Amino acid sequence: MTTANTAKPDRVVIFDTTLRDGEQCPGATMTYEEKLEVADCLDALGVDIIEAGFPIASDGDFEAVSAISKRVQNATIAGLARAINADIDRAGEAVRQAKRGRIHTFVSTSPIHLEYQMRKSQAEVLEIIAATVARARNLVDDVEWSAMDATRTPIDYLCQCVDAAIKAGATTINLPDTVGYATPQEYFEMFRAVRERVANADQAIFSTHCHNDLGLAVANSLAALNAGARQIECTINGIGERAGNAALEEIVMAIRTRADVLPYETGIDTAMLSRASRLVSAVTNFPVQYNKAIVGRNAFAHESGIHQDGLLKYQQTYEIMTPESVGVAKTSLVMGKHSGRNAFRTKLREMGFELGENAFEDAFNRFKALADRKKHIYDEDLEALVDHEIAHAHDRMKVAALTVIAGTVGPQAATLTLDVDGTPSTVQAQGNGPVDATFNAIKMLIPHSARLELYQVHAVTEGTDAQAEVSVRLEEDGRVVTGRGADTDTMVASAKAYVAALNKLMVKRQKVAQAQQL
Amino acid sequence: MTTANTAKPDRVVIFDTTLRDGEQCPGATMTYEEKLEVADCLDALGVDIIEAGFPIASDGDFEAVSAISKRVQNATIAGLARAINADIDRAGEAVRQAKRGRIHTFVSTSPIHLEYQMRKSQAEVLEIIAATVARARNLVDDVEWSAMDATRTPIDYLCQCVDAAIKAGATTINLPDTVGYATPQEYFEMFRAVRERVANADQAIFSTHCHNDLGLAVANSLAALNAGARQIECTINGIGERAGNAALEEIVMAIRTRADVLPYETGIDTAMLSRASRLVSAVTNFPVQYNKAIVGRNAFAHESGIHQDGLLKYQQTYEIMTPESVGVAKTSLVMGKHSGRNAFRTKLREMGFELGENAFEDAFNRFKALADRKKHIYDEDLEALVDHEIAHAHDRMKVAALTVIAGTVGPQAATLTLDVDGTPSTVQAQGNGPVDATFNAIKMLIPHSARLELYQVHAVTEGTDAQAEVSVRLEEDGRVVTGRGADTDTMVASAKAYVAALNKLMVKRQKVAQAQQL
Repeated sequence: MTTANTAKPDRVVIFDTTLRDGEQCPGATMTYEEKLEVADCLDALGVDIIEAGFPIASDGDFEAVSAISKRVQNATIAGLARAINADIDRAGEAVRQAKRGRIHTFVSTSPIHLEYQMRKSQAEVLEIIAATVARARNLVDDVEWSAMDATRTPIDYLCQCVDAAIKAGATTINLPDTVGYATPQEYFEMFRAVRERVANADQAIFSTHCHNDLGLAVANSLAALNAGARQIECTINGIGERAGNAALEEIVMAIRTRADVLPYETGIDTAMLSRASRLVSAVTNFPVQYNKAIVGRNAFAHESGIHQDGLLKYQQTYEIMTPESVGVAKTSLVMGKHSGRNAFRTKLREMGFELGENAFEDAFNRFKALADRKKHIYDEDLEALVDHEIAHAHDRMKVAALTVIAGTVGPQAATLTLDVDGTPSTVQAQGNGPVDATFNAIKMLIPHSARLELYQVHAVTEGTDAQAEVSVRLEEDGRVVTGRGADTDTMVASAKAYVAALNKLMVKRQKVAQAQQL
Repeated sequence: MTTANTAKPDRVVIFDTTLRDGEQCPGATMTYEEKLEVADCLDALGVDIIEAGFPIASDGDFEAVSAISKRVQNATIAGLARAINADIDRAGEAVRQAKRGRIHTFVSTSPIHLEYQMRKSQAEVLEIIAATVARARNLVDDVEWSAMDATRTPIDYLCQCVDAAIKAGATTINLPDTVGYATPQEYFEMFRAVRERVANADQAIFSTHCHNDLGLAVANSLAALNAGARQIECTINGIGERAGNAALEEIVMAIRTRADVLPYETGIDTAMLSRASRLVSAVTNFPVQYNKAIVGRNAFAHESGIHQDGLLKYQQTYEIMTPESVGVAKTSLVMGKHSGRNAFRTKLREMGFELGENAFEDAFNRFKALADRKKHIYDEDLEALVDHEIAHAHDRMKVAALTVIAGTVGPQAATLTLDVDGTPSTVQAQGNGPVDATFNAIKMLIPHSARLELYQVHAVTEGTDAQAEVSVRLEEDGRVVTGRGADTDTMVASAKAYVAALNKLMVKRQKVAQAQQL
């Protein structure tokens, strides 16, 4: 088996591209801070490689890749680059400070791409591959080369390209199913053929990159393992272009659960999968389908039925994939107004949150305030509350008081008091609906030109006293920020979310101003 | 190839179990009316078999299967039954009035189920299969038998069971992957072995039923086709127990798109897939992931990029799966306050809505009222508006006026006027949050003991003047109803949704009262 560069022949390298292919899909844009948070989570999860971005694409992408390179402790950091010198140099610069940095460069190899997109001959592309991979190899020791649209490339030419890339120094060869149309049998055959025909195939790790357009991304990735691939490119929750990428959590749990027929191993701490899923869902505002495999809220709903039957022996046969194995804590500890600090801290730990002392005290006080108003405190309530805490550690503006008049007879009106650096100001505004009125009041108190890109309301828990969670996304001069707010009152949650976004925008403005002064 | 009962050897029978396996998963409960609406949609979609429910499970299930049997024009209607005489008789009665009725009976065949769940020997189970299939065959000509937990059953015993079922008259043999753990290779091998070894295998159609616990449901289903299976059990949006079933839309579009390597055909009108997905998402309140294959909102997001490049030739290679092929209309027709009746009707048709004249006029008036308040009218706005129309054709109670005071200083208060049979009444109520206050006002005007099971807010469109859509689920004496309301004002939408649910509850109460008087 071809597994150069890994200690064990059955070790599968998990290459996470949530921050690149995932972040690139419409609507999933993350802020700089959110990218760092996701990178930290991926590193703790045990991902081998984090593709942190596409450094040439924007200054923001470059900064994020550089910052992630500096802070991440374990994972290799990859930066994407087209087969263009400037791209490669920029990617090399972005990952320069990583403990282990990788340049991931790609070029199309399919006839249709060569003819219509690149307008190059096969021979010209072979030269480009040799030159660009060699250039990347001069900058870093770890170079991945991808044959874009590999599944629509004639096998003979694909072998020539792979051979050229390996000769030029590529250590990983990725054969993506760019259009997401391959079947498992086809994808298996492609890997088998390339690895058999290319003489120096054993000098590189072969990698999959599957899109889910026909629902086959996970099956295709696993089929390639049986043909000798040992790296899988995937994303948390399967986000990504169009129908997304192969879902990391499904790949990892399939390998773990079916070790009898998939005799491979990964370095993933599966107990963190649920938390990673929630984080990525929260920062992208992409909901996870209830019946999503592994991380959907119904994925382990069979548990109750089995418990009810009391079939102890039967349950053991499921033990290979328990809720605990992917970090879904049993909701054994019901929280309410009588719960103390210790129970609250234990519960938060169960849910994967470790707070500093100040943040904890703040969260505990909010929890008690919520418990006074709400009989049942659900896990989602606590998540909303703690995420809010983490996000709002250093806010200049705070919602002090709000009164909104809504209803069938417009115009709706809002009376709002904001604390700005500790000084309260009050204003009254009207609007087209209560949310519009509330946001108009904020605009009167803090004039700004940011555009509202997204407004979403989620009732995070069920019941009449549900806590609402609101997400707001603002855009100003190309800078995008997201704010979230949670409250039993939807209007208060909306105001908090908008102000949270504005707080982030202020921080960004300051950074730009400082940079200009330097 | 074994394809008894079908005209063509490459015709794949699509067996939809959205109303049974889908409806059975936690939180997806549908009302009687919603089940009929989904059944009509599935029939129009071209599904071959609709599994409409589990008639013995409850009177509600029996009534729904009976009503669907009477109304559906084309599809075969299946009722589920355990290997128990009472189940089989009840299923037979429920599908009696169908143009084509099927009894689908199942029994566990795996050692672990036999030993711990059924406490029967293999010989006893073989006798049960023969007796129960024969009993079903006395009631209907079309009998499907399922080997529950087939993928964990030793192949020799599985073959004996299949042989017994076919000898007793089963016309379809289903070999489900009940626990969702199979790999495509294993699932393929099981079908190949059973069809090779069972002497009378050519007298039945073989069927798949795959769960998606490891993300492999679609790949497993397609693998079985290559081993001779010719029926696929699946659900819209892939809903179902735990991680759900194989998604109908993915199965159908994989077969259609990759006809070169999957040389099969189905009877599905793919242009209706998007509408079916939206309907099932709406009645279950299960969101569809943005990157869900085929029906997710991002599934065709590549379109724009390709158009921008102007690569006409390149685009043609995608033509095998265009947004139009699954019923995603191009949003070419932007609606606003200047749009007339004709444009509105055309737009609704594009979106798959055909309204009667009264419903259309009502919807048009609501559209104009909305257009006065809101600059951009999105497809989702129209959907919310039209679904509301369809759902609220005959309502006794209507929200006439509402004023809500919300904010950080409680208690929040609502002043509500309801028209009940044309007579307005007004009341004021307080509550724990504005939604609670509004619902308390409704309870004061229309006293009832129903319990609020679910309250959800969706901002159906983006932007500050977003139209909010609210879902409310009420439960009273085992009867469950769902109401939806849409308005630019979240509070008004909440009141409308609650009152809509109450209206449905009143209809149910009347039905029960009438039945008791008879």
